[in-house]
Amino acid sequence: MAGEPLAVLSAAEAARRIREGALTSEELVGACLERIREQEPKVQAWTFLDEEHALAQARAADEARREGHPVSALHGIPVGIKDIIDTGDMPTENGTVLHKGRTPRHDATVVASLRAAGAVIMGKTVTTECAYFTPGKTRNPVNPEHTPGGSSSGSAAAVAAGMVPLALGSQTNGSVIRPAAFCGAYGFKPTHGLISRHGILALSRTLDHVGVFARTLEDLALAAEELAGYDERDPDTRPRARIPFQAIAAEEPPIPPVIAFVKTPMWERAEEETKEAFAELVQALGDRVEEVELFPSAAEAWEWHKTIMEAEMAANLEREWQSGRGKLSKTLRELIERGREIRAVDYQRALSRIPPMQESFEELFTQRYDAILTPAAPGTAPKGLGSTGDPSFCTLWTLAGLPAVSLPLLQGSNGLPLGVQLVGRRHFDARLLRTARWLVARAAAAG
Amino acid sequence: MAGEPLAVLSAAEAARRIREGALTSEELVGACLERIREQEPKVQAWTFLDEEHALAQARAADEARREGHPVSALHGIPVGIKDIIDTGDMPTENGTVLHKGRTPRHDATVVASLRAAGAVIMGKTVTTECAYFTPGKTRNPVNPEHTPGGSSSGSAAAVAAGMVPLALGSQTNGSVIRPAAFCGAYGFKPTHGLISRHGILALSRTLDHVGVFARTLEDLALAAEELAGYDERDPDTRPRARIPFQAIAAEEPPIPPVIAFVKTPMWERAEEETKEAFAELVQALGDRVEEVELFPSAAEAWEWHKTIMEAEMAANLEREWQSGRGKLSKTLRELIERGREIRAVDYQRALSRIPPMQESFEELFTQRYDAILTPAAPGTAPKGLGSTGDPSFCTLWTLAGLPAVSLPLLQGSNGLPLGVQLVGRRHFDARLLRTARWLVARAAAAG
Repeated sequence: MAGEPLAVLSAAEAARRIREGALTSEELVGACLERIREQEPKVQAWTFLDEEHALAQARAADEARREGHPVSALHGIPVGIKDIIDTGDMPTENGTVLHKGRTPRHDATVVASLRAAGAVIMGKTVTTECAYFTPGKTRNPVNPEHTPGGSSSGSAAAVAAGMVPLALGSQTNGSVIRPAAFCGAYGFKPTHGLISRHGILALSRTLDHVGVFARTLEDLALAAEELAGYDERDPDTRPRARIPFQAIAAEEPPIPPVIAFVKTPMWERAEEETKEAFAELVQALGDRVEEVELFPSAAEAWEWHKTIMEAEMAANLEREWQSGRGKLSKTLRELIERGREIRAVDYQRALSRIPPMQESFEELFTQRYDAILTPAAPGTAPKGLGSTGDPSFCTLWTLAGLPAVSLPLLQGSNGLPLGVQLVGRRHFDARLLRTARWLVARAAAAG
Repeated sequence: MAGEPLAVLSAAEAARRIREGALTSEELVGACLERIREQEPKVQAWTFLDEEHALAQARAADEARREGHPVSALHGIPVGIKDIIDTGDMPTENGTVLHKGRTPRHDATVVASLRAAGAVIMGKTVTTECAYFTPGKTRNPVNPEHTPGGSSSGSAAAVAAGMVPLALGSQTNGSVIRPAAFCGAYGFKPTHGLISRHGILALSRTLDHVGVFARTLEDLALAAEELAGYDERDPDTRPRARIPFQAIAAEEPPIPPVIAFVKTPMWERAEEETKEAFAELVQALGDRVEEVELFPSAAEAWEWHKTIMEAEMAANLEREWQSGRGKLSKTLRELIERGREIRAVDYQRALSRIPPMQESFEELFTQRYDAILTPAAPGTAPKGLGSTGDPSFCTLWTLAGLPAVSLPLLQGSNGLPLGVQLVGRRHFDARLLRTARWLVARAAAAG
């Protein structure tokens, strides 16, 4: 272990050592807490953290192992939880003063799954207000004058800063992929419906996804394998066999993948530096990458996404709007007011565009391409903490429910990470991670 | 077979005879066609019927059997198809002049399932305009001065008149249970999502159900067993094991069922004769029936149903409204105009009330009751052909997606049938038919 601080071990490696008795959960959690004490004044990733409670869970995990109880995949591993995800033993305040002191009685399904896999629930990470645009206190760990992105600001920053190896976030537009890109973490937003959203602040049934942050692709696979699954309390999950995420993600692709480089109609928003970096990356990847123009209706996705998100958020935040709109930010209040005016026919029309769009993507993936390569954001994390940046490079994939991963492969001239986004076929999440692993290796070899 | 006209054989009995070689499909279909020639001038159940095409299917079924091909459950049995259900070999006009001459290229999933089970697709039965309120030409076979009910008018009338042993209908409010009750057929509307709606005129994803008409409970089970199943093209169906409908429906209940007699908030609409008939029926059934008052929020179901139906029909009939509203009836036009004004938040609020209501019903069924007994309609079929009658005794169960069956057990003083409705637990469709069989036997023994 010499030379490698415990806090920045990958989850997979730490779990291996704990399983083998070479490391205790208490040592690992202790090292993470020390890292937090050191970094938190700068980063401000946490909204709730009880050191003693975290250590108590770690000690219980160590005790269970010593007593010969079965040791699961995340045994003793600390995980940060975005503060819109319910925890039965910690407050969950959803980033709004309206929910100050809110203490749910039950764990969200994903938290229960993590506990069942042996994880230590480290604490609650900062979210923007109701996972929308108004920032929390978190700063970018690479440069605290820059935004960490949002809405999963604290989860992305905590993982990137080495405070925890894993954290949960959520994405309704670009709330996992963008902060992962801005902070330099790996971020994974799986296929819509793969991971249950029961017990999580509902903004938009159509668009809400649970996502994961880690510092390696292997760790994304490790977490996804525990989190994916049917939950009768989330009507968009489906009964299916357990997906061997880690095994598939670790495989070599049987034949080298073919990647579609897609600029999307948002390309004009990309910074010059981003355009140049992608041109170089595409060239470095050589004949395995082809530039592809999407079917024409893809250009309308941003409008449909806006209609659906506004209409569904207005419905889901009705109680907050009715009883406390004076305590909501202007941005959120205006979103809800727009959403309240949307007609049911227009909302349904927007919903009805999703399945044909998914079919068009299905064609693209089955006919030739293993994944789509596209920016995660227009550029590096913008300076200032008043905004969390532009999610528009994520909108299309979120609307279509396609799995996406943010890969910290590039860097801007300001030294901040520049995220690469890889998007896969629906329900082929593990294969997307396999393709991502191939891409990372190939980019490293070329670079 | 002496004394029993072939046309009024049950589907199960006819299938048995065909399987054993005692009857040919051509004989059966011929007898049904003869019955149609005799009854159709009075009943007007069909909107498309090609005798030669029906006979050709029957001959092909007989030929296949003679050649030793496997013989499925509905081999050679004629089935009527409501004219909002697509048939690749017959027009499907949805009861509106706007779709006159419409000839789909593919069978609806349910039609394909019937063909796979060996059925003869007899022809298309009359529907009201777009399965809403404006009547077609069909009359009640028991008394042609009375409505057959709607919207599945032709299917109910054809089965009750002995023209076919089985027919398909659909229900968005009371379109299966009500016409079955008015015509004196057995009608079955299964759990929402049990039978695929792919290839059927979509009015309301939330409320649309496929239903079946027959002259025996055994035949309802026979048809349901072939029709139920997962279809990836209907997002509300779910992968599940094949349900042995016939075996379960034929069982004796292990312990005598307990039935909840529920008047519903619509009770004041029931005719005096209906109230008296139900009082007698409840008394005759003795200690197995208890009058139960539903949870208070059930009273709001009619309002939620109205919001959902109007909003979804307005969206689904947008094209018809945009391009041909002058050719829609005033009733349908006004429905669409109301639906177009509904706000997305109100629509979503109505949708959000369904799961808690389903949980309340779940409690009722798991704590004590096997089924709910309630009228199928306020009374017998009203006189006149200008309206299809009042669906309000069906609305609650349709909204909750509960399985329901209409049993022709009672009769009004005018000689017309008075339907009894039995409602079951979601996803326990076969058990509902078993309970219905018990109830029919018990009522017969008591009566």
